[in-house]
Amino acid sequence: MSAVPHPTITLTTDFGTSDHFVGAMKGVIAAIAPAARVIDITHEITPYEILEGAFVISQAWRSFPNRTIHVVVVDPGVGGARRPILVEAGGHHFIAPDNGVLSMVYDALKSKVRVISNAKLMAREISRTFHGRDIFAPAAAHLARGVAAARFGTLIGDYICAGDIKPARISPTCWRGRILKADRFGNLITNFHIDDFRRVKTLPFEIRTASQRVHRLALTYSEAAIGEVVAIVGSSGYLEVAANQASAANILGCGARSPIELEIYDQTGS
Amino acid sequence: MSAVPHPTITLTTDFGTSDHFVGAMKGVIAAIAPAARVIDITHEITPYEILEGAFVISQAWRSFPNRTIHVVVVDPGVGGARRPILVEAGGHHFIAPDNGVLSMVYDALKSKVRVISNAKLMAREISRTFHGRDIFAPAAAHLARGVAAARFGTLIGDYICAGDIKPARISPTCWRGRILKADRFGNLITNFHIDDFRRVKTLPFEIRTASQRVHRLALTYSEAAIGEVVAIVGSSGYLEVAANQASAANILGCGARSPIELEIYDQTGS
Amino acid sequence: MSAVPHPTITLTTDFGTSDHFVGAMKGVIAAIAPAARVIDITHEITPYEILEGAFVISQAWRSFPNRTIHVVVVDPGVGGARRPILVEAGGHHFIAPDNGVLSMVYDALKSKVRVISNAKLMAREISRTFHGRDIFAPAAAHLARGVAAARFGTLIGDYICAGDIKPARISPTCWRGRILKADRFGNLITNFHIDDFRRVKTLPFEIRTASQRVHRLALTYSEAAIGEVVAIVGSSGYLEVAANQASAANILGCGARSPIELEIYDQTGS
Repeated sequence: MSAVPHPTITLTTDFGTSDHFVGAMKGVIAAIAPAARVIDITHEITPYEILEGAFVISQAWRSFPNRTIHVVVVDPGVGGARRPILVEAGGHHFIAPDNGVLSMVYDALKSKVRVISNAKLMAREISRTFHGRDIFAPAAAHLARGVAAARFGTLIGDYICAGDIKPARISPTCWRGRILKADRFGNLITNFHIDDFRRVKTLPFEIRTASQRVHRLALTYSEAAIGEVVAIVGSSGYLEVAANQASAANILGCGARSPIELEIYDQTGS
Repeated sequence: MSAVPHPTITLTTDFGTSDHFVGAMKGVIAAIAPAARVIDITHEITPYEILEGAFVISQAWRSFPNRTIHVVVVDPGVGGARRPILVEAGGHHFIAPDNGVLSMVYDALKSKVRVISNAKLMAREISRTFHGRDIFAPAAAHLARGVAAARFGTLIGDYICAGDIKPARISPTCWRGRILKADRFGNLITNFHIDDFRRVKTLPFEIRTASQRVHRLALTYSEAAIGEVVAIVGSSGYLEVAANQASAANILGCGARSPIELEIYDQTGS
Repeated sequence: MSAVPHPTITLTTDFGTSDHFVGAMKGVIAAIAPAARVIDITHEITPYEILEGAFVISQAWRSFPNRTIHVVVVDPGVGGARRPILVEAGGHHFIAPDNGVLSMVYDALKSKVRVISNAKLMAREISRTFHGRDIFAPAAAHLARGVAAARFGTLIGDYICAGDIKPARISPTCWRGRILKADRFGNLITNFHIDDFRRVKTLPFEIRTASQRVHRLALTYSEAAIGEVVAIVGSSGYLEVAANQASAANILGCGARSPIELEIYDQTGS
């Protein structure tokens, strides 16, 4: 792989923005690859929540130009045995710890996964607690400068895929899923993807949360009454439980990881 | 209009920074206009608070170079009937939903307002809930590449201006206004602009909040005692109610939208 | 000093990200120095906490390329008598109010400190409350364009150094220090630097907080049991009190400024 004219690196972490962590990663990148542009996806992944990170990067990466390099650091095992990896998929690159945070990328795309083991492409000294600065940022910057993926390390097949991303069928008409994320507006993003559950558009259905049942699919938030809780196909393609100009998360008392059920009433028996 | 050498796009939204929304907008811009630089004003506008967005963009845009493109997305009506618009004013461009969020720009400047209707300058598929990514970001990026404003759509005259921005006179010596925003430090920014109320500099006055009255105009925060509540002419040109090294918002229990009165004691009767 | 090919400016402030303040600074920089890249370290320094700012910039600057310009604005005395300064140290530049916020830079490096007094390198009108936009951002931008440091103002020797950064010895075996910062993960960063307290690696020790004593030095977070409170040498080189996948700040009820003691049990008496 050769250098890209406007190399772009994105960052998705649980580092927050109140410390020097993100700034230090950007400094490392600026020193190694001065022409690279760095774009924050978010640094507000709930600390250690690997699947929330998996969801967010899966929603963001397609909006970026080909050959973008996505760094994803949600890394409760930093300094332990987990491996840093470099993934080629869909014409993009992903750099992350091998802990499942790229599960929704693997799920969608044929992926080539390498362990990052070439010490020449890391910081001279590796701290035990800040691999974002010492391993992941240098890897992204060297890649942006045109270093070939093969130079980082060998291909591996035993990378980690988180198992509990898809809803489980618990009866002929009912699935159990969960909330992937409560977004800024309190919309509850479920793991029911419209491509797998198209029948909610034409058949009666019931979404069950701990505190309320939802039967209406709205096309837009503003179609609902203010404060009314409805289902909607979000921009992610996942069903969301939402309220017009109000927080469904607050109304229902739900958040990331909350269980949810979907029943579709199909009288034809199909 | 032709391409600018260092095209600059600013973003002001109520999207927060914990989701992929802002990152996705930046990805779209990077794909269409790789040379554009994107600068965040803020993504922390209170959700759906159109006038807070109007205030923030009115404070920020003048600091930017000519021909900067300002994208402002506070959009409770996304997916409904409200129109996306492109505004030329003061040598800058503004892209926003037509819901009043540019009211304080119109107020200050002669403006040319167009509806954005050219589907070729939008995403191929338009989601119903994320026009930031599908309409506003592509419009900004195409504009940054040099596409002429006229190609986006026709001029309109019936764009929306929010009515309640200026204080109302309620007696010969008294005006009723409101808090536009509590800033990070708890300073309460009122809608009394010093250009309209110069006499507070020379005449005795009283600012009335629900819980306290303020009679002193300080020149700097540090001129007041620590914790003392005073009025000050903020960097915005609006009167602020502030406390030295303390939060006036906390001390007075006020915030955005709180009512406030200003009485100026002019014994000459003028 | 001549222009740098990819000039980099970093920003560290207590401005938060919900107002237009940071955006306005970036607009000023884009107008004066269009080729400069601006990188946020953080804008979430606790308002007015000068030493927290001092710690954060001291941790971040070394990750950046030579000749980076670091703007640090934690400025409770804005508009008062304190001077703006421009510091050359370690091949980098620092621009800040002269209030001690660069103390940990002075501590580590030989520094040349100048007062910024040349009005031609400031905004035409200087507000009394927003020197970030009117003095510090323009200074950084002019410096990025290649204006020589000497043109900003004369060298001074009486700049302010905060006194209480280092731990105080209170007995032959015991030191009193404090928490510099609670980071995003609740790790408590102390002001005990491992270079000054290497013996904790080999001798028994006790760290005393108000509510708990810590005796174990772990090499990585994941080496501790989940929720266990241990000491660790953080990526900053300072001893941290940390808990694996939990917030030590919450467990111990400590935060920035909390006192802490370190006793090292050295039976050899040395």
